[in-house]
Amino acid sequence: MVIILTVSINTLIVLHSHGWKNQARGDTPMRSIQEPKQSPIAIGTRWTLKSSILGEERQILVRVPTGHDTCEQAYPVLYLLDGEDTLFHSASGVIAHLSEWEDHLPEMIVVGIRNTDRTRDMLPTAVTLPNGRRHGGGADAFLEFIANELIPFVEETYRAGPYRMLCGTSASALTVVYEYLSQMIGFSAYLASSPTLDWDERLVFRMIENQASSELSTDAPLVMFAGGHDQGSIADDCKAFNKLLLELEPGSPRVSYRVYDVEGHCPFEGFRDGLLWLMKDWRVSEECIDQGIDAVSEHFESLRLTHGFNISIRSYEEAAHRWASRGRIDDAILWLKQGRAIYPKSADLAFGLALCFIRDKQEDAAGILLADAIASGLEDPRLSQLLERVSA
Amino acid sequence: MVIILTVSINTLIVLHSHGWKNQARGDTPMRSIQEPKQSPIAIGTRWTLKSSILGEERQILVRVPTGHDTCEQAYPVLYLLDGEDTLFHSASGVIAHLSEWEDHLPEMIVVGIRNTDRTRDMLPTAVTLPNGRRHGGGADAFLEFIANELIPFVEETYRAGPYRMLCGTSASALTVVYEYLSQMIGFSAYLASSPTLDWDERLVFRMIENQASSELSTDAPLVMFAGGHDQGSIADDCKAFNKLLLELEPGSPRVSYRVYDVEGHCPFEGFRDGLLWLMKDWRVSEECIDQGIDAVSEHFESLRLTHGFNISIRSYEEAAHRWASRGRIDDAILWLKQGRAIYPKSADLAFGLALCFIRDKQEDAAGILLADAIASGLEDPRLSQLLERVSA
Repeated sequence: MVIILTVSINTLIVLHSHGWKNQARGDTPMRSIQEPKQSPIAIGTRWTLKSSILGEERQILVRVPTGHDTCEQAYPVLYLLDGEDTLFHSASGVIAHLSEWEDHLPEMIVVGIRNTDRTRDMLPTAVTLPNGRRHGGGADAFLEFIANELIPFVEETYRAGPYRMLCGTSASALTVVYEYLSQMIGFSAYLASSPTLDWDERLVFRMIENQASSELSTDAPLVMFAGGHDQGSIADDCKAFNKLLLELEPGSPRVSYRVYDVEGHCPFEGFRDGLLWLMKDWRVSEECIDQGIDAVSEHFESLRLTHGFNISIRSYEEAAHRWASRGRIDDAILWLKQGRAIYPKSADLAFGLALCFIRDKQEDAAGILLADAIASGLEDPRLSQLLERVSA
Repeated sequence: MVIILTVSINTLIVLHSHGWKNQARGDTPMRSIQEPKQSPIAIGTRWTLKSSILGEERQILVRVPTGHDTCEQAYPVLYLLDGEDTLFHSASGVIAHLSEWEDHLPEMIVVGIRNTDRTRDMLPTAVTLPNGRRHGGGADAFLEFIANELIPFVEETYRAGPYRMLCGTSASALTVVYEYLSQMIGFSAYLASSPTLDWDERLVFRMIENQASSELSTDAPLVMFAGGHDQGSIADDCKAFNKLLLELEPGSPRVSYRVYDVEGHCPFEGFRDGLLWLMKDWRVSEECIDQGIDAVSEHFESLRLTHGFNISIRSYEEAAHRWASRGRIDDAILWLKQGRAIYPKSADLAFGLALCFIRDKQEDAAGILLADAIASGLEDPRLSQLLERVSA
């Protein structure tokens, strides 16, 4: 998060150019760093779990929101198939950015499932290769592992709420669509990036055509996307499958499909856009904020009841910032106090509330808040600068 | 990276629905994971450096491309201001995705610089606050730290090439524009996300108006972006500053500016789009690949000479995949062999080359390659599956 402090401008310091350019580009640096210390940058926990159902060890990657360990909130969980290290890094990074740096998504736990035998686990049915070997057919067992070992483990270990999403890419996006249709587990939302829907003579098309019901298999939303330069028939198959779903429920707001013209297989933009589409009711509008604290509370209470989502730290900041900048300092202070009751250790909320107290000429309250925050071990250097200024 | 294996389809296994749904959602999970093991998911190294120039310790976050430690290549480096953990996670994740999962960018080293006293370091000039305290004015010293301590440290510690980028957000994007104009260090490219260009009575505008030369200060490209709902006058100031730059060099292809209508401060999409714009010459076109291996080699040789960029693992895979799928298996094999000479430990290249050998009916060569890769300690389970199949 970035805060801009607006100040009056009285003085201008003359600029000096010191001509470091040649030194920086030359072979002999002017000064060398002494005794650098190093440690790993950790973004989460890598678990190794023994699965009885699959009869093997599985690596599971988990990232929790920054505030997870210092509050009592439960979070939605995104289960990411093909959750190898690079995809887990980028996907969890996008989510961290959209939910903690911006307020576009609720904060969520991300669970990446690394592969051992990808084709066995992802393909719902087995086919026989020309050489007689069998290929695929383990998706049922893999989903059983997720349902009866992984989800219970995640929900015992982390503060995971009831809203669960399933996301996959290519063959694992076929698994997502297969689970969407079969509802073996029943997720709250589904994301499928370039699903290989033609597997096994268009199995998933046949599942719809053969189903007894003439309705969609679930109320959960499904978002599919592909690249205009995708592999094989993937983009066309997505389009046809989307059409088939909409024949069951014309104009359904719960099915979304998009092709990214200039992109190839599994366009990464689709992941971001798909999450934003699934969470399009999440953001509180400027109009709603302008109606005041009751309207904003009602917005989030409704999301809590329907989805189990919490108000995020960024959402507390966003509304308070707008109220404060429009002179509604009482609303801002009340709202940030509510936020601090939920996230008592958030440096951002402490900082925001202290700024509001200063504007409200409650410098003592600001000072107490800043001193408390510093005493509780927060390292944010802005806090001590602000305390110094308030105490001056 | 995702590979789809296309196989003939002979058999269809009847599906069973096991009704796990209630168990997964119930309170008593069927099975509990025994003895889970855990370790951190590390995406890079956190360095603590003692800066003599700044007279303090600074935390520096570094992520290197996956292949960095097992090849001899030098990489471009992105220096990320405001490089706190969340922004570093998301920014380095987007870069990892675009360069290692996709082939949209060259692989690069990302260096995040965490803040201690942000306003001191980022604001080029000092102003006096109403309470008499001084605010800002440390950007020259901060740039001296980057030039004479940080860059030498990075280039001694990692295989960093000569292409250096500077990226900042909000106040630190002002620092980026200030360095672009003053050329104290001289980066190869600049990215400025929602720069606060109005600082100190529009200092950076005055720097251009007062400069002796009537040309742009450097040949390096500058990309600026802001949100349509950005803070204060940021979007308008960006537009005006872009116009001022283009008065010096009408139609310059080295200056880019974009406003994201529905976004707010520091739109994250701009970071991705800005990098893609800076690197728009990077990707080899399908037309170029179709011309053959000489045209592709020439494309990358030209980028190596002008920018110092290497051919990435993904670029080796991408062209080889296209040739192999069009029956040009000799080109694919030759190209992947060249790739393996550069990245001898890449499991992806070993896997791709083995697939080509199998298509070319060189099963023994494929077997040797796979056995070598496994013996060298690669853990990719696809390798042993493939070896088993080849040896059958």
